[in-house]
Amino acid sequence: MGDLLGVAVLGAGHMGADHIRRLDQVVSGARVVAVADPDVERAKEAVAGLTGVSVRPDAEAALDAPGVAAVLIASPGPAHEEALLAAFARGLPVLCEKPMVPDSTGALRIVEAETRVGRRLAQIGFMRRYDAEYRRLKSLLDGGSLGRPLMLHCTHRNVSSPPDFTSAMLVNSSVSHEIDAARWLLGQELTAVTVLRPAPSSDAPAGLLDPQFVLFETDGGALVDVEVFVNCGFGYQVRCEAVCERGSARIGDEHTMVVTTGGAAREEVAQDYLVRFAAAYDREVQAWVDATRRGEVTGASVWDGYASSVVAEAGVRALESGGRVTVGLAPRPDLYDPRAGVSR
Amino acid sequence: MGDLLGVAVLGAGHMGADHIRRLDQVVSGARVVAVADPDVERAKEAVAGLTGVSVRPDAEAALDAPGVAAVLIASPGPAHEEALLAAFARGLPVLCEKPMVPDSTGALRIVEAETRVGRRLAQIGFMRRYDAEYRRLKSLLDGGSLGRPLMLHCTHRNVSSPPDFTSAMLVNSSVSHEIDAARWLLGQELTAVTVLRPAPSSDAPAGLLDPQFVLFETDGGALVDVEVFVNCGFGYQVRCEAVCERGSARIGDEHTMVVTTGGAAREEVAQDYLVRFAAAYDREVQAWVDATRRGEVTGASVWDGYASSVVAEAGVRALESGGRVTVGLAPRPDLYDPRAGVSR
Amino acid sequence: MGDLLGVAVLGAGHMGADHIRRLDQVVSGARVVAVADPDVERAKEAVAGLTGVSVRPDAEAALDAPGVAAVLIASPGPAHEEALLAAFARGLPVLCEKPMVPDSTGALRIVEAETRVGRRLAQIGFMRRYDAEYRRLKSLLDGGSLGRPLMLHCTHRNVSSPPDFTSAMLVNSSVSHEIDAARWLLGQELTAVTVLRPAPSSDAPAGLLDPQFVLFETDGGALVDVEVFVNCGFGYQVRCEAVCERGSARIGDEHTMVVTTGGAAREEVAQDYLVRFAAAYDREVQAWVDATRRGEVTGASVWDGYASSVVAEAGVRALESGGRVTVGLAPRPDLYDPRAGVSR
Amino acid sequence: MGDLLGVAVLGAGHMGADHIRRLDQVVSGARVVAVADPDVERAKEAVAGLTGVSVRPDAEAALDAPGVAAVLIASPGPAHEEALLAAFARGLPVLCEKPMVPDSTGALRIVEAETRVGRRLAQIGFMRRYDAEYRRLKSLLDGGSLGRPLMLHCTHRNVSSPPDFTSAMLVNSSVSHEIDAARWLLGQELTAVTVLRPAPSSDAPAGLLDPQFVLFETDGGALVDVEVFVNCGFGYQVRCEAVCERGSARIGDEHTMVVTTGGAAREEVAQDYLVRFAAAYDREVQAWVDATRRGEVTGASVWDGYASSVVAEAGVRALESGGRVTVGLAPRPDLYDPRAGVSR
Repeated sequence: MGDLLGVAVLGAGHMGADHIRRLDQVVSGARVVAVADPDVERAKEAVAGLTGVSVRPDAEAALDAPGVAAVLIASPGPAHEEALLAAFARGLPVLCEKPMVPDSTGALRIVEAETRVGRRLAQIGFMRRYDAEYRRLKSLLDGGSLGRPLMLHCTHRNVSSPPDFTSAMLVNSSVSHEIDAARWLLGQELTAVTVLRPAPSSDAPAGLLDPQFVLFETDGGALVDVEVFVNCGFGYQVRCEAVCERGSARIGDEHTMVVTTGGAAREEVAQDYLVRFAAAYDREVQAWVDATRRGEVTGASVWDGYASSVVAEAGVRALESGGRVTVGLAPRPDLYDPRAGVSR
Repeated sequence: MGDLLGVAVLGAGHMGADHIRRLDQVVSGARVVAVADPDVERAKEAVAGLTGVSVRPDAEAALDAPGVAAVLIASPGPAHEEALLAAFARGLPVLCEKPMVPDSTGALRIVEAETRVGRRLAQIGFMRRYDAEYRRLKSLLDGGSLGRPLMLHCTHRNVSSPPDFTSAMLVNSSVSHEIDAARWLLGQELTAVTVLRPAPSSDAPAGLLDPQFVLFETDGGALVDVEVFVNCGFGYQVRCEAVCERGSARIGDEHTMVVTTGGAAREEVAQDYLVRFAAAYDREVQAWVDATRRGEVTGASVWDGYASSVVAEAGVRALESGGRVTVGLAPRPDLYDPRAGVSR
Repeated sequence: MGDLLGVAVLGAGHMGADHIRRLDQVVSGARVVAVADPDVERAKEAVAGLTGVSVRPDAEAALDAPGVAAVLIASPGPAHEEALLAAFARGLPVLCEKPMVPDSTGALRIVEAETRVGRRLAQIGFMRRYDAEYRRLKSLLDGGSLGRPLMLHCTHRNVSSPPDFTSAMLVNSSVSHEIDAARWLLGQELTAVTVLRPAPSSDAPAGLLDPQFVLFETDGGALVDVEVFVNCGFGYQVRCEAVCERGSARIGDEHTMVVTTGGAAREEVAQDYLVRFAAAYDREVQAWVDATRRGEVTGASVWDGYASSVVAEAGVRALESGGRVTVGLAPRPDLYDPRAGVSR
Repeated sequence: MGDLLGVAVLGAGHMGADHIRRLDQVVSGARVVAVADPDVERAKEAVAGLTGVSVRPDAEAALDAPGVAAVLIASPGPAHEEALLAAFARGLPVLCEKPMVPDSTGALRIVEAETRVGRRLAQIGFMRRYDAEYRRLKSLLDGGSLGRPLMLHCTHRNVSSPPDFTSAMLVNSSVSHEIDAARWLLGQELTAVTVLRPAPSSDAPAGLLDPQFVLFETDGGALVDVEVFVNCGFGYQVRCEAVCERGSARIGDEHTMVVTTGGAAREEVAQDYLVRFAAAYDREVQAWVDATRRGEVTGASVWDGYASSVVAEAGVRALESGGRVTVGLAPRPDLYDPRAGVSR
């Protein structure tokens, strides 16, 4: 497929270092040519063993390094807006980790900026769209054999939450994956949200409202419910059941090796999202590299990043108020036709 | 265990005839000695082949027939109140099919009448309490190894609804099973209900709000959600997942024979509740006969029948209003200590 | 269905006492009227609480007790031949626990005796024919949608073997269930047997060849393999996969409640055949009582008991010789048309 | 990791073209620098879009092309011996598709040639060793928590066989995967083989003995049975259950999306080995590229290729004779210590 795609990676923390490794060792057709991180030592460690990589303390300098043809943004969320605008100014294709930017006002500015460019440059890192099971479900729903989807029942469980996790973050960080997945699977916008709060688990940190039960309504009349439980203790589980007019389909009960011993048949449950979605990350970055080399932009758009941000903010208000909160989106620019949102 | 228990069966319709067959051919320790039905010919047909059965057009006459030591009420709901009071007046033990009586005002009169008797005589026919899977789940939750239950996710699907089924009946007939099951599994009262109404399936009869998504809150801080979908087309499915502090447990994905052919591994899904719960009905009636012969009353109480009725009525109001409706129960007489509500 | 069937139970040991309980408390339409056991005290204990039961030290006296209309033989194997002949002499219908008699020579005498009677009187207690999963598999195979069965893969595992269990008993006691099940499912006779002996598990008692892998060939060209492992330590598992020309079907991965906790999804595995096959025993005895009251004999025949006995003896010779041993059956009397061998 | 590994691919047929695509688009760290195929047009098509690839009609010329640092042999089996010897003569690392060579005599010559080189250069393409499920099973068995493996029950089913497939090919082509997998999983050599032949499916081509049931004994006293059925009609299924002293473990019931519709819960069954093992091929080639760049050789060895070949030939004799055939291996050179046979 010709020359390797030269990528500048912004951010060399946990996620950035992982993407550098992925671009070097897993993905075909790309090479890392520049890395930016204010902590230059950390950036140097992340590229140890690689040759010909410009390491810079700031993002703009990395974008201007020789050989840069695309950008992968893995810096902290507050740095994303400036990085996206700098990439747009240079006409560089971008893969931007989620959340796109920290709030919906900033997200709308990104939508407006890309609309001014007049063509799509950025893909947002909603990697579930690249998970094999989600893709099979999407394909089944799009095929129409089960009729119209009526409800999605979702489960999102983590073994335990990181320190300083807040009740709002169950909605705007954990559930943000389901927000995008629901929009993508249904091809509909979410229009209202309600958050129910059962008595918290005694294993949750004091003051954390965990679990929560989040209900979304859509502009197509569907209902999406999400159990989010980030201190469930027993595993990382992401499940989705689509209930349609003429059948239901369920993913996420992954089932590989069944071990029978000591009076029970056991299947291991993944403990970590990196185990569950490792292949999805690989496929996402490979798809981005392939599309970029073809001169295309696929995957989740800046509009998807904006819409997720608005819904998540409404979710947090619903959590705080205990009532139903409606979602108000700005008008969607023509650039973001939803039928272009799926990479293949 | 000594003499056979002489049972008067009130009602010889579909359900009554099935109970007559069950008492005669399946259950040990009982015999049918009287049957009442206004349609005497129907009653005679239901006991064809049996000997020594008094067939009467009215219930009181059947209760007074020779050899009657217990009553099974399977007549239409509006006839239940009079039948229950007649049994109470005679001190006869009763198994009464659900719904106990058509509305909560009548249900409260039954509670008051049995309270005046001063001892429990009636068991209400919530047969899920006798299903092997529900019992395993109850036993697991009571054992405490998973910690406190936080949420119950329930599914209740029928292939198609009977003629004249109304939107309210999804709540007060279909979901009434989940209402009792949730109260029983959790040992908690339901305190509020909200009903969400996705766009109806195009396979549902015109005007029927099907499916619905019903949310209950409990006095223990748990959350119970129920998908009820009575024209799902593909099978009869009753599932329940209990999410607890330290684990989850799921029943209802029954799995017996897996057939692999034509590119898929298939498991049959039951098409009918009589297939799914046949053994539960048998076990329920056997347990009632055994307890009655021992002079005991077990199973769901008149209070359970009353509470279910109040919750179901609140659910219908929630469906109509689109909002959250709280549940107001009368004070519970001491006779109905919940710890006596489980038969073994 | 008219009067209760009066049953004489021969043998009041573990199995006999369980059948007395079953006839009294579970099965409809029968009552125990006589019990025989050389240990009269044990017999009296087994009928404590029952009224009108003749307790006798010897079988013939019990058969002649008032009200006896049928016989259930649950005495030790060596007593079966005399008991069967005594029942035949009186024209009494019989349900006889397996093994029918201890060896194939005696089994052939029973075949000849019943043939002289000229009609079937005895049903042999191969209870797997009454297990719901085996019946579904039988029905699927008979329906023909998957084509001709080519192979049966069977698993038979016990937690641990009883004291004094011998290597031969893996074949002639444990595998005897698979011998009958294979003959019944396929409607074919087994014609040769080979036994392979992997290195024994270190958890098996010293000298016991456990596990074994037993291969049967049939007169229809099918192959049946059985893993028998009676000290597997982790559960009681009975599975069967039928591989047919156009699909396969598998039973025995029973799946009821799935519990997810501590990093794994778990399903309990039954520890005991009484748990796994409790309902099959109930259904077997109920079917026998029902058929007997209708004047019919269904279920496994004396011929089935004989054929199983011959195959099991060939299996033991195959185990000892390490080679392939052919099975030689006597000509089958017309009385035992295989198409009559299934009760419904 | 420094410069890209220059690979010469020998053979540009179906498998060769797929490996060229894989090296170009999927695998990181390698580039195709030479391709050999007698059909030069076919070779040119396979590298369309790639730059800097030498296309040659013969293998030796391709090995001598500029930039070749490793060889992937995907030519027809009869060409493998010459290609392997040419690679050995040049000291080039090799990944050689299975079968290594067409017969065990040739295989032994390869063993001897590599032994003369004095270090391992070749990895044989047994890709199941790179399948995630097989690796989990291997890891579980090696961990020892279930005790010693006693039996492996294997299933190998194809929808239909290619034209001209012979009865011997069920053993020496289809089952050859299980031969290697069993040796690898158990870390034992297979010492004897017996093949049972049920009456063929009427859906198999006339004269093809399909299915077959193949039994292997090992030098560790374990038993391996394989159902091989290459015209099963319903899917591609590869399963393996390891029965150990203290538990069993089963892989191959892959379970991703469950669709419930039309009265059944369905899971799709893969129709093709490329679907089932696509990721294993990717992982195999990536592991080979990574190890080669580190200067190591991992994966299945030339000895594994030789041993599989000897066992497969014994299997064909067992099929023809109907009896048990013992396996005679040459003494194993020290170079092939089995503990080095696993890549990580």
